[in-house]
Order: sequence, then structure tokens, then C-alpha cells
Amino acid sequence: MATLTPSLVALLHGPDQPGLVARVSGWIFEHGGNILHADQHRDMEAGVFFQRVEWVPPAEGDVDGMVREFEAFARGLGMNPRVASSARRPRVVLFVSKFDHCFHDLVLRWKSGDYAADFVGVVSNHPDLAEAARGYGLAYHHIPVTAATKAEAETRQLSLLRELGADLVVMARYMQVLSADFLEQAPPVVNIHHSFLPAFAGGRPYHQAHERGVKLIGATAHYATAVLDDGPIIQQDVARVTHRQGVNDLVRLGRDLERLVLAQAVRVHLEHRVLVYGKRTVVFD
Amino acid sequence: MATLTPSLVALLHGPDQPGLVARVSGWIFEHGGNILHADQHRDMEAGVFFQRVEWVPPAEGDVDGMVREFEAFARGLGMNPRVASSARRPRVVLFVSKFDHCFHDLVLRWKSGDYAADFVGVVSNHPDLAEAARGYGLAYHHIPVTAATKAEAETRQLSLLRELGADLVVMARYMQVLSADFLEQAPPVVNIHHSFLPAFAGGRPYHQAHERGVKLIGATAHYATAVLDDGPIIQQDVARVTHRQGVNDLVRLGRDLERLVLAQAVRVHLEHRVLVYGKRTVVFD
Amino acid sequence: MATLTPSLVALLHGPDQPGLVARVSGWIFEHGGNILHADQHRDMEAGVFFQRVEWVPPAEGDVDGMVREFEAFARGLGMNPRVASSARRPRVVLFVSKFDHCFHDLVLRWKSGDYAADFVGVVSNHPDLAEAARGYGLAYHHIPVTAATKAEAETRQLSLLRELGADLVVMARYMQVLSADFLEQAPPVVNIHHSFLPAFAGGRPYHQAHERGVKLIGATAHYATAVLDDGPIIQQDVARVTHRQGVNDLVRLGRDLERLVLAQAVRVHLEHRVLVYGKRTVVFD
Amino acid sequence: MATLTPSLVALLHGPDQPGLVARVSGWIFEHGGNILHADQHRDMEAGVFFQRVEWVPPAEGDVDGMVREFEAFARGLGMNPRVASSARRPRVVLFVSKFDHCFHDLVLRWKSGDYAADFVGVVSNHPDLAEAARGYGLAYHHIPVTAATKAEAETRQLSLLRELGADLVVMARYMQVLSADFLEQAPPVVNIHHSFLPAFAGGRPYHQAHERGVKLIGATAHYATAVLDDGPIIQQDVARVTHRQGVNDLVRLGRDLERLVLAQAVRVHLEHRVLVYGKRTVVFD
Repeated sequence: MATLTPSLVALLHGPDQPGLVARVSGWIFEHGGNILHADQHRDMEAGVFFQRVEWVPPAEGDVDGMVREFEAFARGLGMNPRVASSARRPRVVLFVSKFDHCFHDLVLRWKSGDYAADFVGVVSNHPDLAEAARGYGLAYHHIPVTAATKAEAETRQLSLLRELGADLVVMARYMQVLSADFLEQAPPVVNIHHSFLPAFAGGRPYHQAHERGVKLIGATAHYATAVLDDGPIIQQDVARVTHRQGVNDLVRLGRDLERLVLAQAVRVHLEHRVLVYGKRTVVFD
Repeated sequence: MATLTPSLVALLHGPDQPGLVARVSGWIFEHGGNILHADQHRDMEAGVFFQRVEWVPPAEGDVDGMVREFEAFARGLGMNPRVASSARRPRVVLFVSKFDHCFHDLVLRWKSGDYAADFVGVVSNHPDLAEAARGYGLAYHHIPVTAATKAEAETRQLSLLRELGADLVVMARYMQVLSADFLEQAPPVVNIHHSFLPAFAGGRPYHQAHERGVKLIGATAHYATAVLDDGPIIQQDVARVTHRQGVNDLVRLGRDLERLVLAQAVRVHLEHRVLVYGKRTVVFD
Repeated sequence: MATLTPSLVALLHGPDQPGLVARVSGWIFEHGGNILHADQHRDMEAGVFFQRVEWVPPAEGDVDGMVREFEAFARGLGMNPRVASSARRPRVVLFVSKFDHCFHDLVLRWKSGDYAADFVGVVSNHPDLAEAARGYGLAYHHIPVTAATKAEAETRQLSLLRELGADLVVMARYMQVLSADFLEQAPPVVNIHHSFLPAFAGGRPYHQAHERGVKLIGATAHYATAVLDDGPIIQQDVARVTHRQGVNDLVRLGRDLERLVLAQAVRVHLEHRVLVYGKRTVVFD
Repeated sequence: MATLTPSLVALLHGPDQPGLVARVSGWIFEHGGNILHADQHRDMEAGVFFQRVEWVPPAEGDVDGMVREFEAFARGLGMNPRVASSARRPRVVLFVSKFDHCFHDLVLRWKSGDYAADFVGVVSNHPDLAEAARGYGLAYHHIPVTAATKAEAETRQLSLLRELGADLVVMARYMQVLSADFLEQAPPVVNIHHSFLPAFAGGRPYHQAHERGVKLIGATAHYATAVLDDGPIIQQDVARVTHRQGVNDLVRLGRDLERLVLAQAVRVHLEHRVLVYGKRTVVFD
């Protein structure tokens, strides 16, 4: 949705209490803001309040000051606030290896204007996608990774992320596990992986799924955490398969799912629609 | 979601203006209410504001008075309000003919406690489902309809609906067109019909769909209006089909879709989640 | 699909070799049969051939003789054959506990003629659904099960299945684990269970799924085997959920999935469309 | 699925009669062929038999001769045969205008080896995608079209198609209607268009769908025929939408559907899985 005037988006969560909706919207109204969207959610069992509120600040105001004041106000309500301005485009770095389907998909969406963000570079442990990246006008940083050099490589990656001012890392089929250390120091990292019912441990999951005769294959996008593939889930989808599909068909359908699910996860993140809370997300879409 | 204390649900819509969220939530807060859920939507192009807000009124208060006051307040904001109390269970009348799949499905969901509503009777132009209705403890009103007696039959139906205090009529595959006159005087009427891509006019739509080799069949639940099958859409769904399915399979899959889509539409209506605006709905789910 | 003349359905599998399709169809043609449907599949990796072939035997022929001859012929090709006649309606026994959603759904489908089968009785470890079963004209066998009496109860169940001539047991939310001994002696058993991405071990899976913020919930129908919930998968489906759905909504949506997936699995089994091979199925639909 | 040896694929349809499966498979077997896949379908109501059969011809044989002989044999059975060899890669020409989402998607799938086909050129009525095409190593033919020059432009397009030896034209969001004359002389043409429930005539369909509050949007791939958007359907899919999605979101989701549905339609066509029969298709997948 095109917003011509810059707007502010706040994501809040904290202990539930009466009057939160009234107080937050009242504060914005009193400070001259015009609420565009407000969506809130209560987890009744946990007693937690979640809100996403987007507003246009007054035309002549000090936007940075308003952000600071709002955050202080929200903290005063016991909330954990995060405020972003649409005037500041998030800076995205893609991590890739050799598979290029998610890479092309994300870059083409970005180029067609789907993402209100700047893609500022590509990091890879392989040289394979260098030419494709440059074809898109994206700087390519080849940082090889071996068991022996992994720590050093991550140090280089982190320093590059700082240099590029990265706000988000997207693992577009980056085939390396990022260490807990790296994840602590890096901006949020979105990853994509296949999912099956039942789950399959070990390598060659599509072969296992085929051998087991599953009727659905899936993909899950989540925030990377120190525990592999166990981070807060952002988006999931499945496709129906039959015995008529061979392993290669499953892999191909899986690629389509991965592209779509990762693209959707990146979009809701960039639009400040994802609130992470413990091991889960609340996605306001 | 079980709500032990009675709650109030307001559905509002009207011209958009700054501060609406703040004013509505502020009013509820100042009057001792505790907002459970608030969901709002702005149609930017049309400049219309839509809101569903659910709150628990103060324990000792005059609930009817609060409803009246809130409605006056909302009208003062230029809004078109509709307020319902969870303490008052909507009264539902089913209209059926001979097909029984939607009938059984709705009644079983009601009996299992899915609907916070009372099913208070069954109206049919045929005697076929009388025994099944009585087996469920539901009064069955057989009102035959012919071209010659249609006006008279609708008069009897309307008087019965008044007598039963009906808040909602569900056309569970009732195979008669209701007149514009009837619809004006009756409570809201939810209907279900098949939908195809492309659409097929005329009879035997499943045969037409099969002959045309469609790959998807669908069902649409909507509010009945004077223009046949053109009322505001509440819910839609589709199922994938191939040439391997014959016409009978399409009919069977269509029945499954009809049951599910109608049941979902009835549920969101009964939970006061559907706001009708012009030819469309906003469904807050 | 209505077949007026009785037809035969053969399910075959065995080592792949050239000419199998030609030989099987040639045999049927030479013996005066008219093939209605023939669907075959090759697992290239495993070198296994699978076929479902349905044909109308010659009008005046000895059908039982033809079945025996065909089975001998198929074995001669190295195939593992199973032949069923549409003239012999499979006999189905439902196992239930207290949940009634799958029970009502299956019985109503059967009553509406969806299944070319006879439902011949209901077995339960609880008395709760006795009246509902009798309302449908189905004999209800209450066989309580405790840890101490489980072996004895299973003996009674098995003897009842023999007495009823059961060809299929459907666990319509029967909340007891059937022993390996029971499963060895019983006819095929179809079961239904919830499935999640990721999978959740332990009790209260819908609570776990809600806490984890999953975006999809699923159900899987499979043949019961000695290893719990690990039998060959017949059918799977999922539904999309968001944070707006509470645990109760997940449970309700899960019930809808369970009903639909189990009903579909029972149908393909009864139409002799499911070929079990190792830990997987090939479903010819 | 990788097939190392060249294989032949026959698509047949004609009046149903006993023994067709046996005769076709028998013929292939007797001529030394090894059937890889055979899938057949009977339209009981219309009395029509459809078959897709794929086989490996004998290693040392005259493949072209076998094709000719098989076609004569099939015609002798009253069938309408079409035989293709996997050794001959179909030649595909893309028609585009300004929208690039389907264009990039198809070309990237082709480059990643998803299609056993050669993309041999791009035709456009606009110069916009020339650079992108050349970046992929594809010749770009800019043939402007105006009302006055349409006939002449189509003559140029047809002559180009002949020159390129095109077997398939894919309208990847080519925004011109092709004339009946053109379609008669051109190879098969696959097109993609949006689909809604209900259908919307006239321009700006996403705006209409939004105003009408549809809950599903869809896309349909079909063979282009003289009657606009009414050709035999190859593939369809839908996505769920709510009031939370604005018109721009619908357009974006529509683009995702268009890409996926068109890519799938192109794939089944190129794998010789689509049998066109009257106004419908039988897709053997």
C-alpha cells in the first residue's frame, strides 16, 4: 500500500491491562498523529498484549523526538516498544551459496518495487552467483567458509554487515549454519527450510519424504536462532504431492515453496509486521 | 473462545477521520469497560473506517444503558453502529429442502457447542427432513411452495420467523429463491452456492464444469439479496479437481465445500464478525 | 462413480520388467474383460511396478474363477496381487471413544450413499455414543478398556470383528493404542491423527502448536501399525492459522481437518485405490 | 524426471472400445518398446478414451519409422494420435509487453533446467524488456502493434515463428489479443489471465474484486483461442485474501499466481501431458 507521507510503525508487547488500546491511541491522537492502521492481539492464556500501530506524525513535527517520546511512553505502560519510520528504508544483505532460486526471486521482487528496502550486498561462501549479482548491480562478497576458518569468516561477515549498515540478513539458501555468537551480534536473520509431515532428520529429506510416501511437502521461514531450524516461525506453506511425482519433482516443488514462503516472510518483516515473542511470532498481516 | 463474563461487540463503519480509534477506545475505557479485542480497517480509496471492538462492561453496570449510550456516542462520530451482547444468544432458523448435508453439518456443530446461538426451528418446502430434525429435537415446519402459492408461503414463513424471534435465517441448500419482499422483512439470510472459474449460467453447473474441464471447483457463502447469488460474500473456498473425477465426484466434493464454507460463514456471522458495507463485507476474523 | 455391472479391481505390485502393462491388459482382454480404468506407476529408483486395473468381466462368466485365474497369472509375473469385486461390499466397523465428530461424519456419508460399503457395527471403550449409534440403526458394542483388561478387551474385539465379518476397522478418534498382536490379527485399520510442522511430542499438541505460533495445522490418516502414528500415510491436509486463533479455534479447525481427511482416506480404501508397499502407500485417485 | 535414453510420448484420444489399453501396450511391447508410464482415462458420459503412454524404443531401432508406424496403428484403432520424441526439444517463443514477472520466472526456470525445451526468442510490442532478454542471451524482436498495423504485425510475427521453428508460443503477459487468423497459423499458444469468483467483465478487475470484497483471487492458464479467455483450461490456482489487502496487494498476489500457474502450464505442455479435446483438456500429471 503506497504511503506518500512518511509514517511510523510501532510494535509493542507487554503484560495485558485494561485501557492499553485507549492509552496508546489517545497518546498518538493528542500528539497530532493520525492512525492509519492499528491491530492488537491478546494472548488470554499468557496475559500478554501485542499491538502494531501505524500512524502519520504531524506534518511539521520532530519525528525523531516523537519516536523517543513514544518509546518512553510505551515503556511507562510496561510495554516493550520498537518503532520504525517508513522514511528510513531497511538495508538488506543476502547470504547465498550455490542454489539461486530464492536469490533471483528476492532480487526481482526488490527490483520491481515490492520491498520498501534497499538490498545492499550479497555474501556467499562460493563464487558461483557473483556474475548474477553484479548483473543486478549488487556488490558480491565472496567469503569462503571451512570448518577451520568458520570463526574467522564469521568475523569478516559481521564486520561487513556493520560496514553495510545491514538491518536484515536473509539466508537465501545459504548452506552454512551460523553460530550462536554470530547470531548474537548480527541483525535479525531470516532463514528458509523445507518441512515435512512427519519431520525427517538427516540428509536428503526429499528422498526420505518420497520413500515415506508423504502427501504434502512444505517450507517454513523462521528467524535463525542458535538451535538449528527451531527459531520463531514467520510463514509456512505446503504443496500436495502424489506418487506420480518423483524425487526431482519434489525438489522442484520444494524450490517453488521456498521462494514463495521466504519472499512473504521477508516482506512482512520489512513492513514491520512481525513481533517476536519468546519462541513464537505474531504476524500482523 | 470461551468468554465467561458477558461481553459487548460493536461493529462500526462511517466516514474516516483522525482520532476515531482513540475516541472509541477512550469512551469504553472511561465508562469502565475492558477491551478484549479491537480490530479496525480503513478503506483508503473509499475513505471509510470499519471497526469491530469487543469489551467487557463494568461488573455492576447497566448493560442495556451502556449499549444505548455507546450507540448514541458512535452516531455522534458519524458512525453506523451495531452492538450485540454475548448474553443474548442469537436465534437461528434453518431453511432446507431435500439435500441434507449442510443441514446435518450445521446442527451437529451447534450440538457440539461450536455456535453461541440457539437453533429454534427448521422450515422446509418438503417433508423429507422432518424425521431427522425431530431426531435432533428441532421443530419442523413444512410449508410447501408452488409458483401459485409462493407469496402466501412467504407470508407464513415471515410470520413464523417473527413468532420464533429469529435473528438469522440459514439457507442450508433451500432450493427456492426468496423474493425481494421477503428479504426486506426477514432477518439476515445466509445462503451457499457453488462457484466456478469460469462461471456457468443455467442448470447442471457441475456437468458444465466437467465438460469444460475446470481444475478448481468452489463454493461461496453470501447474504441473500434480491439479485440472485450476488449478495455480499462472507466466505469462499475451492477444491482441486482433475479429469479423473467424474461429475458425481465433483458433486460430492462440492457438497464438502458447501458444508464447510456455509458453517464458517454462519460462525463468523454469529460471532458478530461480519460488517456489511454496500455490496461487500469486512470479516474481522 | 456409479458402476451398474459388477466390476473387478486388481491392485498389483512387484519387480518392474518390460511388458507388464501389455501382459496384464492383454490377459484381461483375452478373457473377455473390458478395462474401465488402468493406472500404473513405476518407482524408478526402487525398480518396482504398481498397478490398479478395474475391469468388467464377461457377462456370463464365472467371476470367482476369473479372480483366481487372474491372481495366479499375476503371481506368475512376479506380482503381488489383490483382487476385489464390486459385487462384494466391504464390511466396516467403527471404533470410537467419546469424540463424535468423525463418527457422525462417516456415518452420514455412508447413509448418503458415498461409500460402497456396509457399516456393520460400532465398538467403543465408552458408553457415550451408544444412543447416537442406535439412532443410525448401528449396533453398539461397549467394550471397556483398562490397563489391566486391555488384552482381554482386544480378544473380545477381535472375536467381534470375526463375527461381523469386518473387512476394515476405522478408528474414528478411538483413543486407545491397539497392540501389535491385535493389528496382526485384525483386518486393515485406518487411523487419523493431528500433524504439525514442526511435530510436537507429548500431550496437548494444540496447546504446544499455539505456544509455538505455527502457521499451519494438519491431519494425517494412515494405516495403524505397531509403531504409533507411523503407519503408511493415506491422506494429509492442512489449514492455515494465525495468532488470531486461540487454542480452542485450533482444536475446532483440527476437528474439521480430521473429519475430512479420515473420510477421504476411508473412501479411497473402500474403492480399492490404496496399495500399501513397505512403509508407504500408492493412492490411485 | 531425468530420462537418459530418448523416449517417445504418445497422446491419443478417440471413441472408446474394449481392448484399447491391451492393444496399445501390446503393440509397443511387440515392437520392442519398454513402457515407462501409461495413463489412460475414459469419459464415461461422452464415450471417449484418452491415453498418454511413454516408452523407450528399442536401442538400435529407427525411431522415426516407429513413430510413423505407431501413428498409423493408432489411427487404425480410430484414435487421434500425437507422438513426440524426447530427443527433439520443443522450441519456445515468449511474447511479452511491459510486465516482466512471468517473463523472468519462465526464463529462470528454463535456465535452471526445469524445461526440456529451447527458448529461442522473445517477441514484444514494446522495447522495455529488450535489455533483460539480451542479458539472458535471448534474441529480442520488437514488433510494435497498433490498431492500424495489427494485421501486418501478426504477419511479421508468424513469419518470425516459422523462421525460429517455434513449437510453442507463451504469452507471458502479452497485452494484445491475437486474431483468429493468427491462432490458426501459429503453433499452440498458452496464455494466462486472472480469474475471480464471481467473474468481472471490463477493465481494472482487481479494483472490481476489491470493491466486491472477494475472499479468493485466482489465475487460469489456457490455450488461446479466437474467443478471448475461453480456451481449454490447463491449470488454475487461487490465493486467499481479506479486507486487509488493498488493491495493490491483490495485484501483487495476482502476479505470484500468474507466474506459478503459467509456469506449471508451460511445463505440462512441454512434457506432452496435455491432451486437448473440444473445449477442455485432459492433463496427465
